Amino acid sequence: MEQIILKPVGYVRNQVTVKKDQFWGSDVSVIELMEEFRGGLTGLQEFSHAIILCHLDKAGYRPEKHLLRRPRNRTDMPLLGIFSQRTKDHPNQIGVTTVEILSVSETTVTVKGLDALDGTPVLDIKPYFPVFDRRDARTPQWVDILMENYF
Amino acid sequence: MEQIILKPVGYVRNQVTVKKDQFWGSDVSVIELMEEFRGGLTGLQEFSHAIILCHLDKAGYRPEKHLLRRPRNRTDMPLLGIFSQRTKDHPNQIGVTTVEILSVSETTVTVKGLDALDGTPVLDIKPYFPVFDRRDARTPQWVDILMENYF
Repeated sequence: MEQIILKPVGYVRNQVTVKKDQFWGSDVSVIELMEEFRGGLTGLQEFSHAIILCHLDKAGYRPEKHLLRRPRNRTDMPLLGIFSQRTKDHPNQIGVTTVEILSVSETTVTVKGLDALDGTPVLDIKPYFPVFDRRDARTPQWVDILMENYF
Repeated sequence: MEQIILKPVGYVRNQVTVKKDQFWGSDVSVIELMEEFRGGLTGLQEFSHAIILCHLDKAGYRPEKHLLRRPRNRTDMPLLGIFSQRTKDHPNQIGVTTVEILSVSETTVTVKGLDALDGTPVLDIKPYFPVFDRRDARTPQWVDILMENYF
């Protein structure tokens, strides 16, 4: 089986030390890059938003539990495949989160709305390009119900 | 140095065998999942869009070339850090692409607009949730110039 080996480019620093399923909307995090990436944030301050990729190292995919389930095990939710949900427990447990950029320094980015615990490894930072990332998309009705009061 | 080991959940199958910087908008790709993830796509057909994470194994980050550069080496572009660009040559070379879902079967998803070569390992599939992913975002002017005629 093919293996892919990655290295963190930095780490999340914030006040969130206990796992939670929602209410990340107002959390502020500082992403501290490794020293070798100094310079790599040049120009990012001109963007309002970025996409943060994290390795959600406290999550974990277990096929018997996660391959097919109801979101948050709620009986009012349909039975769904893991790739039809945004739960943290995906295979490879990579988080993809669009965040608001609050400030940028030489080796740090301060962001709002990152759903990652303190100490989480960061795999990448990308600027949010509406031409790529902003879509008029259709979702099933359960999404609206699940996301009520999420933020 | 911490290492993170991932395994592909599937592979991209399409007609694109030669690297290119643009014109991916109408390319159709089939994502073939590994057999162990059968069932994992249940419910995805109700979404219009998905986010595909790929390991861009033909790309590669070289600090001396990519840490700070002008997009596509164009002299009309500013000097930018790697994390302020959407080039494929990021550290960890993970592609994040929002695609249109054309069809879903037991172990395949057919999509439009995936910017990955034939044979590219797929790391994850997530449904596109506008509440997470669709943002009113500000970008610098160079983005508009770079993205002219991209699709």
